[in-house]
Amino acid sequence: MAIVQQSFSVKTSRRCEMIDITSRVEKVVAESGIRTGTVTVFCPHTTAAITINENADPDVVHDLLLTLEALIPQHRAGYRHNEGNSDAHVKSSLVGASVQVLVESGRMVLGTWQAIYFCEFDGTRTRNTIVKVMGE
Amino acid sequence: MAIVQQSFSVKTSRRCEMIDITSRVEKVVAESGIRTGTVTVFCPHTTAAITINENADPDVVHDLLLTLEALIPQHRAGYRHNEGNSDAHVKSSLVGASVQVLVESGRMVLGTWQAIYFCEFDGTRTRNTIVKVMGE
Amino acid sequence: MAIVQQSFSVKTSRRCEMIDITSRVEKVVAESGIRTGTVTVFCPHTTAAITINENADPDVVHDLLLTLEALIPQHRAGYRHNEGNSDAHVKSSLVGASVQVLVESGRMVLGTWQAIYFCEFDGTRTRNTIVKVMGE
Repeated sequence: MAIVQQSFSVKTSRRCEMIDITSRVEKVVAESGIRTGTVTVFCPHTTAAITINENADPDVVHDLLLTLEALIPQHRAGYRHNEGNSDAHVKSSLVGASVQVLVESGRMVLGTWQAIYFCEFDGTRTRNTIVKVMGE
Repeated sequence: MAIVQQSFSVKTSRRCEMIDITSRVEKVVAESGIRTGTVTVFCPHTTAAITINENADPDVVHDLLLTLEALIPQHRAGYRHNEGNSDAHVKSSLVGASVQVLVESGRMVLGTWQAIYFCEFDGTRTRNTIVKVMGE
Repeated sequence: MAIVQQSFSVKTSRRCEMIDITSRVEKVVAESGIRTGTVTVFCPHTTAAITINENADPDVVHDLLLTLEALIPQHRAGYRHNEGNSDAHVKSSLVGASVQVLVESGRMVLGTWQAIYFCEFDGTRTRNTIVKVMGE
Protein backbone atom coordinates (compact mmCIF):
# COMPACT_ATOMS: atom_id res chain seq x y z
CA MET A 1 0.00 0.00 0.00
CA ALA A 2 1.20 3.51 -0.83
CA ILE A 3 0.04 6.74 0.79
CA VAL A 4 1.12 10.18 -0.44
CA GLN A 5 0.05 13.57 0.88
CA GLN A 6 0.88 16.93 -0.69
CA SER A 7 -0.57 20.42 -0.43
CA PHE A 8 -0.58 23.55 -2.54
CA SER A 9 -1.77 27.12 -2.13
CA VAL A 10 -4.52 28.84 -4.09
CA LYS A 11 -4.69 32.63 -4.41
CA THR A 12 -8.20 34.00 -4.80
CA SER A 13 -9.02 37.38 -6.30
CA ARG A 14 -12.72 37.91 -5.61
CA ARG A 15 -15.07 37.40 -2.64
CA CYS A 16 -16.75 34.43 -4.37
CA GLU A 17 -14.87 32.47 -6.98
CA MET A 18 -14.35 28.94 -8.27
CA ILE A 19 -10.81 28.01 -9.36
CA ASP A 20 -10.12 24.92 -11.45
CA ILE A 21 -7.46 22.88 -9.59
CA THR A 22 -7.80 19.66 -11.62
CA SER A 23 -4.34 19.78 -13.19
CA ARG A 24 -2.71 20.47 -9.82
CA VAL A 25 -4.44 17.46 -8.26
CA GLU A 26 -3.59 15.34 -11.31
CA LYS A 27 0.07 16.29 -10.83
CA VAL A 28 0.01 14.98 -7.24
CA VAL A 29 -1.59 11.74 -8.42
CA ALA A 30 1.00 11.32 -11.18
CA GLU A 31 3.92 12.01 -8.84
CA SER A 32 2.58 9.54 -6.27
CA GLY A 33 3.14 6.66 -8.66
CA ILE A 34 -0.10 5.11 -7.41
CA ARG A 35 -1.89 3.20 -10.18
CA THR A 36 -5.20 2.31 -8.50
CA GLY A 37 -6.87 3.80 -5.45
CA THR A 38 -8.54 7.04 -4.43
CA VAL A 39 -7.52 10.66 -4.05
CA THR A 40 -9.08 12.94 -1.44
CA VAL A 41 -8.96 16.70 -2.04
CA PHE A 42 -9.48 18.55 1.25
CA CYS A 43 -10.11 22.21 2.05
CA PRO A 44 -8.84 23.18 5.54
CA HIS A 45 -10.92 26.39 5.65
CA THR A 46 -14.47 27.00 6.95
CA THR A 47 -15.43 29.71 4.47
CA ALA A 48 -14.38 27.80 1.35
CA ALA A 49 -15.11 24.39 -0.17
CA ILE A 50 -14.21 21.86 -2.85
CA THR A 51 -16.60 20.68 -5.58
CA ILE A 52 -16.74 18.94 -8.93
CA ASN A 53 -18.53 20.58 -11.84
CA GLU A 54 -18.29 21.43 -15.55
CA ASN A 55 -14.91 22.25 -17.03
CA ALA A 56 -16.00 23.60 -20.42
CA ASP A 57 -18.41 26.54 -20.29
CA PRO A 58 -17.41 29.16 -17.66
CA ASP A 59 -21.07 30.23 -17.61
CA VAL A 60 -21.83 27.15 -15.49
CA VAL A 61 -19.57 28.46 -12.73
CA HIS A 62 -21.15 31.90 -13.08
CA ASP A 63 -24.65 30.44 -12.72
CA LEU A 64 -23.64 28.27 -9.77
CA LEU A 65 -22.20 31.25 -7.84
CA LEU A 66 -25.26 33.34 -8.81
CA THR A 67 -27.61 30.71 -7.39
CA LEU A 68 -25.65 30.33 -4.17
CA GLU A 69 -25.71 34.12 -3.73
CA ALA A 70 -29.49 34.21 -4.36
CA LEU A 71 -30.17 31.43 -1.85
CA ILE A 72 -27.59 32.48 0.74
CA PRO A 73 -27.07 36.27 0.60
CA GLN A 74 -24.25 37.81 2.63
CA HIS A 75 -26.65 39.46 5.07
CA ARG A 76 -29.73 37.89 6.66
CA ALA A 77 -31.96 39.09 9.53
CA GLY A 78 -30.99 37.16 12.63
CA TYR A 79 -27.34 36.52 11.85
CA ARG A 80 -25.24 36.80 15.02
CA HIS A 81 -21.69 36.07 13.81
CA ASN A 82 -20.08 39.50 13.61
CA GLU A 83 -17.54 38.96 10.85
CA GLY A 84 -20.04 39.44 8.02
CA ASN A 85 -19.27 36.06 6.50
CA SER A 86 -21.97 33.76 7.90
CA ASP A 87 -23.06 33.13 4.31
CA ALA A 88 -19.60 31.79 3.50
CA HIS A 89 -19.76 29.32 6.40
CA VAL A 90 -23.15 28.05 5.20
CA LYS A 91 -21.95 27.63 1.63
CA SER A 92 -18.90 25.77 2.93
CA SER A 93 -21.05 23.15 4.68
CA LEU A 94 -23.50 22.79 1.78
CA VAL A 95 -20.85 22.41 -0.94
CA GLY A 96 -18.56 20.40 1.33
CA ALA A 97 -14.97 20.42 2.57
CA SER A 98 -13.71 17.65 0.31
CA VAL A 99 -14.22 15.52 -2.75
CA GLN A 100 -13.01 12.03 -3.40
CA VAL A 101 -12.01 10.91 -6.87
CA LEU A 102 -11.15 7.39 -8.03
CA VAL A 103 -7.70 6.63 -9.48
CA GLU A 104 -7.19 3.97 -12.13
CA SER A 105 -4.20 3.35 -14.44
CA GLY A 106 -2.39 6.15 -12.61
CA ARG A 107 -4.93 8.82 -13.51
CA MET A 108 -8.07 10.31 -11.98
CA VAL A 109 -11.32 8.78 -13.23
CA LEU A 110 -13.28 11.93 -14.11
CA GLY A 111 -16.16 12.28 -16.54
CA THR A 112 -15.57 14.16 -19.80
CA TRP A 113 -16.96 17.40 -18.41
CA GLN A 114 -15.77 17.16 -14.82
CA ALA A 115 -13.25 19.46 -13.19
CA ILE A 116 -12.30 19.85 -9.51
CA TYR A 117 -12.85 23.37 -8.19
CA PHE A 118 -11.59 25.22 -5.14
CA CYS A 119 -14.56 27.39 -4.07
CA GLU A 120 -13.74 30.70 -2.39
CA PHE A 121 -16.70 32.23 -0.53
CA ASP A 122 -14.93 34.92 1.54
CA GLY A 123 -11.97 36.19 -0.50
CA THR A 124 -9.65 37.55 -1.40
CA ARG A 125 -7.22 35.28 0.44
CA THR A 126 -4.36 32.84 0.02
CA ARG A 127 -5.83 29.41 0.67
CA ASN A 128 -4.47 25.91 1.08
CA THR A 129 -5.57 22.60 -0.50
CA ILE A 130 -4.42 19.24 0.83
CA VAL A 131 -4.36 16.18 -1.44
CA LYS A 132 -3.96 12.59 -0.28
CA VAL A 133 -3.60 9.61 -2.61
CA MET A 134 -4.03 6.09 -1.26
CA GLY A 135 -3.70 2.85 -3.18
CA GLU A 136 -1.02 0.74 -4.77
CA MET B 1 -4.79 -4.74 0.51
CA ALA B 2 -7.43 -5.31 -2.14
CA ILE B 3 -8.82 -2.71 -4.54
CA VAL B 4 -11.73 -3.42 -6.88
CA GLN B 5 -13.42 -1.03 -9.31
CA GLN B 6 -16.58 -1.72 -11.28
CA SER B 7 -19.15 0.43 -13.06
CA PHE B 8 -22.75 0.06 -14.16
CA SER B 9 -25.19 2.12 -16.20
CA VAL B 10 -28.40 3.72 -14.97
CA LYS B 11 -31.25 4.60 -17.32
CA THR B 12 -33.33 7.57 -16.20
CA SER B 13 -36.87 8.25 -17.35
CA ARG B 14 -37.69 11.75 -16.10
CA ARG B 15 -35.90 15.11 -15.95
CA CYS B 16 -35.47 14.82 -12.16
CA GLU B 17 -35.45 11.43 -10.53
CA MET B 18 -33.79 9.46 -7.74
CA ILE B 19 -33.02 5.80 -8.46
CA ASP B 20 -32.16 3.38 -5.65
CA ILE B 21 -28.85 1.71 -6.58
CA THR B 22 -28.12 0.12 -3.18
CA SER B 23 -28.42 -3.49 -4.33
CA ARG B 24 -26.17 -2.85 -7.32
CA VAL B 25 -23.47 -1.34 -5.11
CA GLU B 26 -23.89 -4.16 -2.58
CA LYS B 27 -23.31 -6.64 -5.41
CA VAL B 28 -19.97 -4.99 -6.25
CA VAL B 29 -18.96 -5.11 -2.59
CA ALA B 30 -19.92 -8.79 -2.31
CA GLU B 31 -18.07 -9.73 -5.51
CA SER B 32 -14.94 -7.87 -4.35
CA GLY B 33 -14.48 -10.31 -1.48
CA ILE B 34 -13.38 -7.39 0.70
CA ARG B 35 -14.42 -7.89 4.34
CA THR B 36 -13.48 -4.53 5.88
CA GLY B 37 -12.83 -1.18 4.23
CA THR B 38 -14.75 1.51 2.39
CA VAL B 39 -16.71 1.76 -0.84
CA THR B 40 -16.86 4.97 -2.87
CA VAL B 41 -19.81 5.47 -5.24
CA PHE B 42 -18.94 8.09 -7.85
CA CYS B 43 -21.06 9.92 -10.45
CA PRO B 44 -19.00 10.98 -13.50
CA HIS B 45 -21.64 13.53 -14.66
CA THR B 46 -22.04 17.23 -13.81
CA THR B 47 -25.85 17.33 -13.96
CA ALA B 48 -26.43 14.35 -11.67
CA ALA B 49 -25.32 13.29 -8.19
CA ILE B 50 -25.20 10.52 -5.59
CA THR B 51 -26.86 10.72 -2.18
CA ILE B 52 -28.01 8.62 0.76
CA ASN B 53 -31.58 8.91 2.00
CA GLU B 54 -34.64 6.94 3.12
CA ASN B 55 -35.38 3.61 1.47
CA ALA B 56 -38.90 3.00 2.80
CA ASP B 57 -41.42 5.73 1.98
CA PRO B 58 -41.15 6.97 -1.64
CA ASP B 59 -42.77 10.22 -0.46
CA VAL B 60 -39.40 11.22 1.02
CA VAL B 61 -37.83 11.19 -2.43
CA HIS B 62 -40.82 13.12 -3.80
CA ASP B 63 -40.45 15.79 -1.11
CA LEU B 64 -36.69 16.01 -1.61
CA LEU B 65 -37.04 16.60 -5.36
CA LEU B 66 -39.90 19.08 -4.71
CA THR B 67 -37.71 21.09 -2.33
CA LEU B 68 -34.74 21.14 -4.71
CA GLU B 69 -37.07 22.34 -7.50
CA ALA B 70 -38.50 25.09 -5.25
CA LEU B 71 -35.04 26.31 -4.20
CA ILE B 72 -33.33 25.87 -7.57
CA PRO B 73 -35.87 26.27 -10.38
CA GLN B 74 -34.85 25.46 -13.94
CA HIS B 75 -34.88 29.10 -15.01
CA ARG B 76 -33.49 32.07 -13.08
CA ALA B 77 -32.90 35.70 -14.13
CA GLY B 78 -29.21 36.10 -14.84
CA TYR B 79 -28.40 32.57 -15.95
CA ARG B 80 -25.87 32.65 -18.82
CA HIS B 81 -25.33 28.95 -19.61
CA ASN B 82 -27.41 28.39 -22.72
CA GLU B 83 -28.30 24.70 -22.34
CA GLY B 84 -31.22 25.33 -19.95
CA ASN B 85 -29.73 23.06 -17.28
CA SER B 86 -27.90 25.44 -14.96
CA ASP B 87 -30.20 24.25 -12.18
CA ALA B 88 -28.99 20.69 -12.69
CA HIS B 89 -25.35 21.77 -12.34
CA VAL B 90 -26.13 23.58 -9.08
CA LYS B 91 -28.01 20.59 -7.66
CA SER B 92 -25.08 18.37 -8.65
CA SER B 93 -22.62 20.40 -6.56
CA LEU B 94 -24.97 20.75 -3.57
CA VAL B 95 -25.91 17.06 -3.40
CA GLY B 96 -22.41 15.94 -4.34
CA ALA B 97 -20.69 13.71 -6.87
CA SER B 98 -20.03 10.79 -4.52
CA VAL B 99 -20.82 9.06 -1.27
CA GLN B 100 -18.57 6.88 0.81
CA VAL B 101 -19.95 3.94 2.77
CA LEU B 102 -18.12 1.77 5.30
CA VAL B 103 -17.73 -1.98 4.70
CA GLU B 104 -17.61 -4.46 7.57
CA SER B 105 -18.04 -8.26 7.56
CA GLY B 106 -18.24 -8.07 3.76
CA ARG B 107 -21.31 -5.83 3.71
CA MET B 108 -22.06 -2.12 3.60
CA VAL B 109 -22.68 -0.54 6.99
CA LEU B 110 -25.92 1.35 6.30
CA GLY B 111 -28.57 2.47 8.79
CA THR B 112 -31.93 0.70 8.77
CA TRP B 113 -33.57 3.35 6.59
CA GLN B 114 -30.60 4.24 4.36
CA ALA B 115 -30.42 3.64 0.62
CA ILE B 116 -27.93 4.93 -1.95
CA TYR B 117 -29.56 6.94 -4.74
CA PHE B 118 -28.42 8.00 -8.18
CA CYS B 119 -29.89 11.50 -8.62
CA GLU B 120 -30.80 12.54 -12.16
CA PHE B 121 -31.31 16.30 -12.56
CA ASP B 122 -31.28 16.63 -16.38
CA GLY B 123 -32.82 13.46 -17.82
CA THR B 124 -33.79 11.44 -19.54
CA ARG B 125 -30.36 9.89 -20.17
CA THR B 126 -28.28 6.76 -19.82
CA ARG B 127 -25.85 7.46 -17.00
CA ASN B 128 -22.85 5.73 -15.51
CA THR B 129 -21.95 4.98 -11.88
CA ILE B 130 -18.44 3.95 -10.81
CA VAL B 131 -17.90 1.94 -7.63
CA LYS B 132 -14.55 1.37 -5.92
CA VAL B 133 -14.04 -0.91 -2.92
CA MET B 134 -10.81 -0.67 -0.92
CA GLY B 135 -9.84 -2.77 2.09
CA GLU B 136 -8.81 -6.29 2.90
CA MET C 1 -2.38 -1.76 6.07
CA ALA C 2 -4.46 -1.16 9.19
CA ILE C 3 -8.24 -0.69 9.31
CA VAL C 4 -10.09 0.24 12.50
CA GLN C 5 -13.82 0.89 12.93
CA GLN C 6 -15.50 2.22 16.07
CA SER C 7 -18.82 3.88 16.82
CA PHE C 8 -20.23 6.10 19.53
CA SER C 9 -23.63 7.49 20.40
CA VAL C 10 -24.68 11.14 20.40
CA LYS C 11 -27.62 12.41 22.46
CA THR C 12 -29.38 15.40 20.98
CA SER C 13 -31.52 17.82 22.97
CA ARG C 14 -33.25 20.00 20.38
CA ARG C 15 -34.99 19.43 17.03
CA CYS C 16 -32.09 21.05 15.13
CA GLU C 17 -28.66 21.09 16.66
CA MET C 18 -24.98 20.76 15.76
CA ILE C 19 -22.77 18.87 18.23
CA ASP C 20 -18.98 19.09 18.07
CA ILE C 21 -17.66 15.51 17.92
CA THR C 22 -14.05 16.35 16.95
CA SER C 23 -12.44 15.10 20.17
CA ARG C 24 -14.37 11.82 20.00
CA VAL C 25 -13.22 11.21 16.43
CA GLU C 26 -9.67 12.22 17.36
CA LYS C 27 -9.77 9.61 20.16
CA VAL C 28 -10.65 6.87 17.66
CA VAL C 29 -7.79 7.98 15.40
CA ALA C 30 -5.32 8.01 18.31
CA GLU C 31 -6.42 4.58 19.54
CA SER C 32 -6.12 3.11 16.02
CA GLY C 33 -2.37 3.68 16.04
CA ILE C 34 -2.59 4.66 12.38
CA ARG C 35 -0.02 7.33 11.49
CA THR C 36 -1.01 8.20 7.92
CA GLY C 37 -4.26 7.60 6.06
CA THR C 38 -7.84 8.84 6.16
CA VAL C 39 -10.72 8.75 8.60
CA THR C 40 -14.34 8.57 7.47
CA VAL C 41 -17.05 9.82 9.86
CA PHE C 42 -20.41 8.35 8.87
CA CYS C 43 -23.97 9.12 10.01
CA PRO C 44 -26.29 6.08 9.67
CA HIS C 45 -29.48 8.22 9.90
CA THR C 46 -31.53 9.88 7.15
CA THR C 47 -32.64 12.92 9.18
CA ALA C 48 -29.19 13.88 10.43
CA ALA C 49 -25.79 14.58 8.84
CA ILE C 50 -22.08 15.21 9.41
CA THR C 51 -20.29 18.42 8.47
CA ILE C 52 -17.13 20.42 9.10
CA ASN C 53 -17.35 24.05 10.19
CA GLU C 54 -16.02 26.63 12.64
CA ASN C 55 -15.04 25.54 16.15
CA ALA C 56 -14.60 28.95 17.77
CA ASP C 57 -17.66 31.22 17.64
CA PRO C 58 -20.94 29.36 18.41
CA ASP C 59 -22.74 32.09 16.45
CA VAL C 60 -21.56 30.40 13.25
CA VAL C 61 -23.52 27.27 14.13
CA HIS C 62 -26.54 29.42 15.05
CA ASP C 63 -26.41 31.22 11.70
CA LEU C 64 -25.96 27.95 9.78
CA LEU C 65 -29.04 26.38 11.40
CA LEU C 66 -30.99 29.64 10.90
CA THR C 67 -30.19 29.64 7.18
CA LEU C 68 -31.10 25.98 6.73
CA GLU C 69 -34.41 26.65 8.50
CA ALA C 70 -35.10 29.67 6.27
CA LEU C 71 -34.36 27.75 3.07
CA ILE C 72 -35.94 24.46 4.12
CA PRO C 73 -38.80 25.10 6.58
CA GLN C 74 -40.42 22.16 8.34
CA HIS C 75 -43.65 22.53 6.38
CA ARG C 76 -44.00 23.16 2.63
CA ALA C 77 -47.05 22.99 0.35
CA GLY C 78 -46.91 19.73 -1.55
CA TYR C 79 -45.05 17.62 0.99
CA ARG C 80 -46.45 14.05 1.02
CA HIS C 81 -44.32 12.30 3.66
CA ASN C 82 -46.60 12.18 6.70
CA GLU C 83 -44.04 12.20 9.51
CA GLY C 84 -43.55 15.98 9.47
CA ASN C 85 -39.81 15.67 8.93
CA SER C 86 -39.38 15.99 5.17
CA ASP C 87 -37.24 19.06 5.84
CA ALA C 88 -34.85 16.93 7.90
CA HIS C 89 -34.43 14.45 5.05
CA VAL C 90 -33.62 17.27 2.62
CA LYS C 91 -31.09 18.82 4.99
CA SER C 92 -29.50 15.38 5.43
CA SER C 93 -28.85 15.01 1.70
CA LEU C 94 -27.63 18.59 1.25
CA VAL C 95 -25.21 18.56 4.19
CA GLY C 96 -24.22 14.94 3.58
CA ALA C 97 -24.01 11.65 5.45
CA SER C 98 -20.24 11.67 5.95
CA VAL C 99 -17.02 13.63 5.97
CA GLN C 100 -13.56 12.38 5.24
CA VAL C 101 -10.54 13.83 7.04
CA LEU C 102 -6.87 13.18 6.32
CA VAL C 103 -4.63 11.65 8.98
CA GLU C 104 -0.92 12.47 9.23
CA SER C 105 1.55 11.87 12.09
CA GLY C 106 -1.23 10.06 13.92
CA ARG C 107 -3.56 13.07 14.03
CA MET C 108 -6.36 14.52 11.93
CA VAL C 109 -5.27 17.23 9.50
CA LEU C 110 -7.84 19.93 10.28
CA GLY C 111 -7.56 23.66 9.68
CA THR C 112 -7.19 25.95 12.70
CA TRP C 113 -10.91 26.75 12.82
CA GLN C 114 -12.30 23.38 11.73
CA ALA C 115 -14.42 21.09 13.88
CA ILE C 116 -16.45 18.02 12.93
CA TYR C 117 -20.14 18.33 13.78
CA PHE C 118 -22.95 15.82 14.14
CA CYS C 119 -26.01 17.63 12.72
CA GLU C 120 -29.38 16.72 14.23
CA PHE C 121 -32.34 17.81 12.10
CA ASP C 122 -35.18 15.84 13.74
CA GLY C 123 -34.40 15.55 17.46
CA THR C 124 -34.43 14.90 20.21
CA ARG C 125 -32.97 11.43 19.77
CA THR C 126 -30.06 9.18 20.63
CA ARG C 127 -27.98 8.89 17.47
CA ASN C 128 -25.04 6.85 16.32
CA THR C 129 -21.79 7.88 14.60
CA ILE C 130 -19.48 5.36 12.92
CA VAL C 131 -15.80 6.14 12.44
CA LYS C 132 -13.40 4.21 10.22
CA VAL C 133 -9.67 4.84 10.03
CA MET C 134 -7.63 3.34 7.17
CA GLY C 135 -3.91 3.65 6.63
CA GLU C 136 -0.69 2.40 8.11
